[in-house]
Amino acid sequence: MNDAMNDLAAATRGLSAGTLALADRAVRAAVLDAIAAALDSARAEIIATTAAETALLPAELEPEFDRMTGTLRMFAAVAREGSWVRAAIDTPAPAGAKSIGPNVDMRRMLVPLGPVAVFGASNFPLAYGVCGGDTASALAAGCPVIVKEHPAHPKTGRLLWFIAHGAMARCLAASVEGFDVASHVPLRYVEDPGHDRGVGVALAEHEQVAAIGFTGSRAGGLALDRVARGRVDRGGVPIPVFAEMGSVNRVVVCRGALRTRGREIAADLARSVLARHGQQCTKPGLIALGGEADDARAFVAELSRLLDAALARRLLSERITGEYERGCARLRAVDGLSLTTSRPDALVHVGGERRAVPMLFAAMDPVRGNLDYVQMFARGAEAIGEEVFGPAAVVLCADGWENLLYADASLVTSVYADEDDLLHVADDGGILHGQTELALGLSAAARTTGRLVFNGVPTGVRVCESMVHGGPYPATNRPDTTAVGPLAIERWCRLVCFQNCPDALLPEELRDDNPLGIWRTVNGRSTRDGIPRNA
Amino acid sequence: MNDAMNDLAAATRGLSAGTLALADRAVRAAVLDAIAAALDSARAEIIATTAAETALLPAELEPEFDRMTGTLRMFAAVAREGSWVRAAIDTPAPAGAKSIGPNVDMRRMLVPLGPVAVFGASNFPLAYGVCGGDTASALAAGCPVIVKEHPAHPKTGRLLWFIAHGAMARCLAASVEGFDVASHVPLRYVEDPGHDRGVGVALAEHEQVAAIGFTGSRAGGLALDRVARGRVDRGGVPIPVFAEMGSVNRVVVCRGALRTRGREIAADLARSVLARHGQQCTKPGLIALGGEADDARAFVAELSRLLDAALARRLLSERITGEYERGCARLRAVDGLSLTTSRPDALVHVGGERRAVPMLFAAMDPVRGNLDYVQMFARGAEAIGEEVFGPAAVVLCADGWENLLYADASLVTSVYADEDDLLHVADDGGILHGQTELALGLSAAARTTGRLVFNGVPTGVRVCESMVHGGPYPATNRPDTTAVGPLAIERWCRLVCFQNCPDALLPEELRDDNPLGIWRTVNGRSTRDGIPRNA
Repeated sequence: MNDAMNDLAAATRGLSAGTLALADRAVRAAVLDAIAAALDSARAEIIATTAAETALLPAELEPEFDRMTGTLRMFAAVAREGSWVRAAIDTPAPAGAKSIGPNVDMRRMLVPLGPVAVFGASNFPLAYGVCGGDTASALAAGCPVIVKEHPAHPKTGRLLWFIAHGAMARCLAASVEGFDVASHVPLRYVEDPGHDRGVGVALAEHEQVAAIGFTGSRAGGLALDRVARGRVDRGGVPIPVFAEMGSVNRVVVCRGALRTRGREIAADLARSVLARHGQQCTKPGLIALGGEADDARAFVAELSRLLDAALARRLLSERITGEYERGCARLRAVDGLSLTTSRPDALVHVGGERRAVPMLFAAMDPVRGNLDYVQMFARGAEAIGEEVFGPAAVVLCADGWENLLYADASLVTSVYADEDDLLHVADDGGILHGQTELALGLSAAARTTGRLVFNGVPTGVRVCESMVHGGPYPATNRPDTTAVGPLAIERWCRLVCFQNCPDALLPEELRDDNPLGIWRTVNGRSTRDGIPRNA
Repeated sequence: MNDAMNDLAAATRGLSAGTLALADRAVRAAVLDAIAAALDSARAEIIATTAAETALLPAELEPEFDRMTGTLRMFAAVAREGSWVRAAIDTPAPAGAKSIGPNVDMRRMLVPLGPVAVFGASNFPLAYGVCGGDTASALAAGCPVIVKEHPAHPKTGRLLWFIAHGAMARCLAASVEGFDVASHVPLRYVEDPGHDRGVGVALAEHEQVAAIGFTGSRAGGLALDRVARGRVDRGGVPIPVFAEMGSVNRVVVCRGALRTRGREIAADLARSVLARHGQQCTKPGLIALGGEADDARAFVAELSRLLDAALARRLLSERITGEYERGCARLRAVDGLSLTTSRPDALVHVGGERRAVPMLFAAMDPVRGNLDYVQMFARGAEAIGEEVFGPAAVVLCADGWENLLYADASLVTSVYADEDDLLHVADDGGILHGQTELALGLSAAARTTGRLVFNGVPTGVRVCESMVHGGPYPATNRPDTTAVGPLAIERWCRLVCFQNCPDALLPEELRDDNPLGIWRTVNGRSTRDGIPRNA
């Protein structure tokens, strides 16, 4: 704990100067591009280091590497372009026009919150690591970053930090006058090889830390949120925590889709469950089947066969391996759920190593018939509602979309449906009578998920403006935001408004001559993100 | 407590149907306009009721009434226009173009969170009351509203609710098929005449409540936030609380401005302190003077004279009256601070009534010289850092803008400066050497405030797009948002993303033919709030 405090004191020294160094958005963009370029130069070394440390395959890490550098460059472009600040200008209303309140000149924009502490993920050592999306978005916003080491991959973390820190130092020394590479670089790294809870707590309590990005377990995210709010009890300022906390992602296969292409969907889902050996927050966890019992049985048999055909693999860490075994045991104990894959044990020992065996559990008992989510919930809610991290999934019957609402909210919900399924009209007699079952189901599902996928697997994240990697609790604690895509930058910002401020003293984003071209005024009317209101 | 629970059960019955009734944005707009029209028809009765109950003057309530109805109509326009949902469309990248991750069609927008509980303010019974900004923005977002009665003005609250509820019921019955006026109206009112803590807690803990808007004390806001997060300990879902918690607003008068127009500024600030008898969250609380001691003394004498010339007035409630007396006593006890107004007591008794006397305290001791904020803070931090609600203010010397940073963050900071003040160049020798003192000061002030006013009083809120009524803790608990202006609607929303969704199943905001005209795609590139990125 004392060591942690010492490290932390070093990690936060000179951060104010680091903030100033990031004040210029062109500099921020240059820094992000420089980090991406430096990582590219060390691509082979990084991937080899990470593969050795995490047991993830180079073939899995290659696209993740591209996502990491692609995200850094995307945020460089976002910072350079400038419209992310949500600039708005309200000039005084012209004579005769109405203004509510005093008719003053008002201009607002987003400004950075201050240093951001990043607690990266175990499962994406690159895309959610030292140079991952939280770091990239925070730097793009103008916030220094302090990364806490992830004990599952310290070698990867230190290598990434070394490369990124060096690239950043060179870039800032070249572009910021008076910049001191010894103490001003706004990217810090706090070691935590022993997974010492004190390190994370000290970081979350640190006076200079203004926000936290976390990717990990629900318990971890909630604990960090408590620490961050508890700062107020010690006379401090509470800070926001953006926690992505895992998810039991639902997949619904509608009657028609199950009948016409059940095998193909089973193959899709097998690939999705097996990718990175199930260690993805977007892994399909709960697969609900509509339609006939025969179709459902064929689907379960095919999915089981495909999972049985996959090799057992080492998971990311011993801790995660132990949790996988316990998770599978919990599912096995649920009344009404049977193991439909053929290997009996969740772990096998190969050499000195424990490897995880893919497993499928299904409520497909031929005697008792299928059980839907509500029935299953009554029999073992805790187990089927909890994420099992690793290559395991559960299949249920899905008679009635509304049952989905009884499951915890998720990051992603996938729906497989055919043209025929689109025509199934609801006969509930209620206010929605006459809508199609699918439309009803989609609107119900959208209420409890961050991303709704149509005819596709939940895994696989496109990094683009519209991406929402988030969702209602317990998937995250902040459903108003996303951890992926340009919008993620707003997590590290707050709003500020300038009233009657002389043009020369305004930030350039808000000046009359609109040097960034990021807003429009039409006939003196209010603007909002470039679009005039009340038009 | 049992009564409270019964009331609450009644208040939340049928709310799901209420949510559905608000699903159509045109209906939401019609409802908001109908409420505004109904309030207009009862204007005289409302203002008379409120004036009698709160001791606010009709002349003070008239503009507040206009702000209430203006805000309702503004949010009607926001809902009708539709671009507030932040729609974004990413069509698949064309062949040859790069996509990070799977090249799928992605579309995102904001969707309503669900029922919002509104805890209104004591001091703005109309603009922050039953039909105030929180209610208007939540209804515009599509969220039903449950208002907790404010014990300081139950008659006003019940009257507003009666009028708004009736208007809403009539409007929805006319436009929504199957709407039941007896149980579906999505505006509820929970009585709390005795200020029973249990009522608020039960509401914040209620399963159906999805978010909370609060305007009031810091203790109240923090307590509510604790309850809302504590839901998770009882197996529930934590919900966001948007708390605006009062503020000691800073005013800085620069050397040149003090010299050339000190009297005029003193008159401005006297009016600002005295408006609504100091019962405004934007009241100037801490006035810092730059420049010469003689100018400062003249300013304090003039401001004291103007406050002395004002009549004592009744405050909003007995509770607030007692707190005003205690707050003034705390300031009086601060070493180095003297009372510069002539009336010795904070309260006077007139008839059976206790009335508040305007008071000014200043660190202008002719023997010891002026003291700046840091020096004063060392002598009585708790007192000068705490809001005194009512017609009292403190004057300090402001040598060095950076001292402002030692004060708690505020909703508003005002700066009075002349042309001459713009030229004062910093000679700190540091990284910012050579910038003007004023630019430095503004950037420092912006770091600790939500709205920065130039040459104007902090009171007076223009309701427009750029408005930020918010700020860092302790002014609010959510500096990323604003309680006033169109952006306030986003507090009641979360993000959802549709991936590869058939056009017919998409919300109309996201359909290919862009029926609302709220987004643009340029050459298939990502859009963001209508502006293509990476352009």
